[in-house]
Amino acid sequence: MSIASPLAARLGIHPIIQAPMAGVSTPELAAAVSNAGGLGSLGIGASIVSQAQEMIERTRALTTRPFNVNVFCHQPAVRNTAQEAAWMAHLAPLFEECGMDVPTSLEEIYKSFIEDDEAFEMLLETRPAVVSFHFGLPPTERIRALQDAGIYTLATATRLQEAREIQERGIDAIVAQGIEAGGHRGIFDLDAADEQLSTSVLVRLLVKQTDLPIIAAGGIMDGQGVRSALELGAAAAQLGTAFILCPESAANASYRANLKSQCAAETRLTSALSGRPARGILNRFIRHAESESGIEPAAYPVAYDAAKRLNAAAAKLGNHDFAAHWAGQGATMARELPAAELMHQLIREWQDTQ
Amino acid sequence: MSIASPLAARLGIHPIIQAPMAGVSTPELAAAVSNAGGLGSLGIGASIVSQAQEMIERTRALTTRPFNVNVFCHQPAVRNTAQEAAWMAHLAPLFEECGMDVPTSLEEIYKSFIEDDEAFEMLLETRPAVVSFHFGLPPTERIRALQDAGIYTLATATRLQEAREIQERGIDAIVAQGIEAGGHRGIFDLDAADEQLSTSVLVRLLVKQTDLPIIAAGGIMDGQGVRSALELGAAAAQLGTAFILCPESAANASYRANLKSQCAAETRLTSALSGRPARGILNRFIRHAESESGIEPAAYPVAYDAAKRLNAAAAKLGNHDFAAHWAGQGATMARELPAAELMHQLIREWQDTQ
Repeated sequence: MSIASPLAARLGIHPIIQAPMAGVSTPELAAAVSNAGGLGSLGIGASIVSQAQEMIERTRALTTRPFNVNVFCHQPAVRNTAQEAAWMAHLAPLFEECGMDVPTSLEEIYKSFIEDDEAFEMLLETRPAVVSFHFGLPPTERIRALQDAGIYTLATATRLQEAREIQERGIDAIVAQGIEAGGHRGIFDLDAADEQLSTSVLVRLLVKQTDLPIIAAGGIMDGQGVRSALELGAAAAQLGTAFILCPESAANASYRANLKSQCAAETRLTSALSGRPARGILNRFIRHAESESGIEPAAYPVAYDAAKRLNAAAAKLGNHDFAAHWAGQGATMARELPAAELMHQLIREWQDTQ
Repeated sequence: MSIASPLAARLGIHPIIQAPMAGVSTPELAAAVSNAGGLGSLGIGASIVSQAQEMIERTRALTTRPFNVNVFCHQPAVRNTAQEAAWMAHLAPLFEECGMDVPTSLEEIYKSFIEDDEAFEMLLETRPAVVSFHFGLPPTERIRALQDAGIYTLATATRLQEAREIQERGIDAIVAQGIEAGGHRGIFDLDAADEQLSTSVLVRLLVKQTDLPIIAAGGIMDGQGVRSALELGAAAAQLGTAFILCPESAANASYRANLKSQCAAETRLTSALSGRPARGILNRFIRHAESESGIEPAAYPVAYDAAKRLNAAAAKLGNHDFAAHWAGQGATMARELPAAELMHQLIREWQDTQ
């Protein structure tokens, strides 16, 4: 097996990581990627601990190779009743269209890993080879405890300052997430200005300005993209959108159809769906939500509760235009292949000129 | 000389192009780049024809190698007196601060090449090896006439649709300009939605979806970046910001100081300075201009006339915070080296693993 970087060597993998994608990744997808020599990932940030543990155990039953478990480390929502009410009023016409009453109260649907003792204990117990952090970092003693248990740690940075904090906190490697990436941007502090660096620029900057292995993430759709990232000094590349059409993913039929259509050429970075900036295929929900400036979404993940309830009601009526169909730039280049076959193609493309 | 692509072979160059950068490029810069084996460029879109011809002749006196001459092919401004007045009213506090009356009438300071017979005749006569088009394309018969005179033609695309039009119109190669790029985005139609594709995604898309050589432009700061672009299938890479600190560029002292400072880490894509989206170092002009939503800049290049007049007055007072300091993402990685030396470094870095 050819090994492209110290990180890949440490994990015994080709430098190709399947992005965690909570709600899309499955044990079957992660295991297929890991079995093909890459690093499969599970996103458990949207799962309760018992479900997450089940996913990890199921993955372990399907592969003996390393895989990655991703958790959300967002700052818990600061609730703002007036803002939430204004947001609901703004979305009211959509709820009405779906024959549903506007929710009178919303929930913080995901517990942040930074305050989730149970999830922490579960990871310590199940010991996946890799644990990755998104939206921030857990307390240092927890990072240390996971590492002491033999777990390799990753954290997402969207800018140099976050990368420096990740390095200072002793994480093992950095996922450099460019503006092209589908799904949620891993920004730590939503109040900081966002330079919206592309994957290439961010990777090159972090390779030069930090000492950690850098994993390129965002807009990479094929093995040529992997190679291109490695030329910038990246230790590996993480692909998300490229794996959504795999039959092993949890994407539903409407998501797949949308991603295969020309609609996938038009993505939008928006906070409207969840309360945090995330890139997805432009749809009527986003258009409506962004139609009036000055109305801010409820905080993450409270806004997501509203969008999910609306989408559930719409989906029952056969309307999928309010769904969160996360996808990165270049989504039209996604291929519909079983994960093992896609991995073999990615590896062939990556190795072509090596 | 190692040749990396058919385009580079056709022009007999290393696959490194110095971006035209009207107002920053000079005959000395272009000639130094060409003499070092790259493709130097002049931007003449902001020059009257006699000046442009002088620049071309001066470049030819400094190099016998091919160089590129770039022209602006924007749709001429649709004047809107009310909008221009509102824009001037919005900028009034800045003019006042500079002790200057608000201009009562603004000029369309640049003539578009699509209606500039004199510039066309001058190019036919001087016959630079390469002519490149930005903001659109000239009439097909003019493209043909330039090609019949032995001139190799390039045009900028920021999206697939523009690239297809460029190919249909018979241009020889496409400059794929990603969202990272400093200076003006080469968008044809400002009313079309802008997906803001990164250089990597755009290059990969155009390599797969068009038949022309693709030149990667935007956020490339070193030879590793050149290599990375070539791995995506690009025939060459175009670097702009990387050349601004060369002593041969026309950048003034305040522009250089700003680019060398940490301010260069914060760029902004804005239409406020010129009326067209362009990326520059964030400054007080941009902050003020964008401080009120709903006030749109005057059309390009009319808004640029206002910004230039304001900056001229401010500069006399030693205030450089209203200047257009165009720079791309990753600008902090720019190196201050003579152009020949920078080119040697870029070539060394690019060739390192070939």
